[in-house]
Amino acid sequence: MRTLVPFDARDPNSRLSPVLDGTERHDFANAMLGDVLAAVREAGGDPHVLSTAELPAEVDTAAPVIIDSRPLTPAVSAGIEGDTAVVMSDLALATPSGLRRAMRTPESGDVAAAPGLGGGTNVLVVRHPEFEPDYHGTSFDDHRQAARSIGAPFRPIDSFRLAVDVDGPSDLPEVLLHGTGRAADWLADAGFAVVVDEGRAMVVRD
Amino acid sequence: MRTLVPFDARDPNSRLSPVLDGTERHDFANAMLGDVLAAVREAGGDPHVLSTAELPAEVDTAAPVIIDSRPLTPAVSAGIEGDTAVVMSDLALATPSGLRRAMRTPESGDVAAAPGLGGGTNVLVVRHPEFEPDYHGTSFDDHRQAARSIGAPFRPIDSFRLAVDVDGPSDLPEVLLHGTGRAADWLADAGFAVVVDEGRAMVVRD
Repeated sequence: MRTLVPFDARDPNSRLSPVLDGTERHDFANAMLGDVLAAVREAGGDPHVLSTAELPAEVDTAAPVIIDSRPLTPAVSAGIEGDTAVVMSDLALATPSGLRRAMRTPESGDVAAAPGLGGGTNVLVVRHPEFEPDYHGTSFDDHRQAARSIGAPFRPIDSFRLAVDVDGPSDLPEVLLHGTGRAADWLADAGFAVVVDEGRAMVVRD
Repeated sequence: MRTLVPFDARDPNSRLSPVLDGTERHDFANAMLGDVLAAVREAGGDPHVLSTAELPAEVDTAAPVIIDSRPLTPAVSAGIEGDTAVVMSDLALATPSGLRRAMRTPESGDVAAAPGLGGGTNVLVVRHPEFEPDYHGTSFDDHRQAARSIGAPFRPIDSFRLAVDVDGPSDLPEVLLHGTGRAADWLADAGFAVVVDEGRAMVVRD
């Protein structure tokens, strides 16, 4: 299935700036993108990077790159062609099995979505020609309502690994605890480790 | 399947004290317990409340109550009898389908577990007589290793709805965004609502 992977090549992971400098944020974002593209491919998807700008020469995604500097909603909307999945590029824990559950649609004409922490939409699978994505705010519920308004069945995908988008520092423990790919390796190589303080997991850097 | 639901009847949800007073924390904890027990029953489980103290008379769980004032690990360990599931009482988003996935074990002798945010273990399904739970710290990985050490297959359960345990105020948006039971109703009735501030969902109270 055609799979768009939106990627911010200009200022990725800006909320990680308290713990990572600019170069590091780019490197970490590239590692997560690599993990997501690998998981999409293993799940049978055909990934297309939907990037806000040209990717640096050293980033070899081995996937077509669509450059669209517009905000997420119009860029994704323009990139949807027939049955299309949209998988965020910061899903460092995404697994092929979770993505397969999302892409394995029992009936044509429906919409499937995996919520992100905080109400966003981390994975969207669109098989209805009239469905229009809208990533503003708590988009998961908006997508459910948008599907209902056009009579398309809506199928929520219940996945922890697809729910964790790496947004701020509080998401980094999840990557170290559960990740097995480049992003987890990158964090460990950069000196990050998980500590538990008063029952809460957090990261420290050596 | 025998299902233990550990419950703190003395000082529940202490990390919610910035936003809920003592009586409210008890009421909200009771609402979540009711949701979890209903989901366990609908998933085919036979719930037993494993409580740190007597439940107040007004809380009718319609389930056997085991009183054990010890810490979680020895209390759960003593409560395991044959094939046993352990489902935390603060999983306000737990659905029968998520729990069914956890309890539906393809082979006897294995251990299944659903991680919580922050590395804990929110659901544990034990079908191996030698397995010993240990809920200290980042217990999900410890449980994986404990299963490995006795040769028991370990099956991770990938569920967003089982990953969200209601610990601190930052978990409340998830309950309002995705909950459909008593806990979500309780929060709404108490005046809580979700707002999005700089792309992050949080709760406000009117």
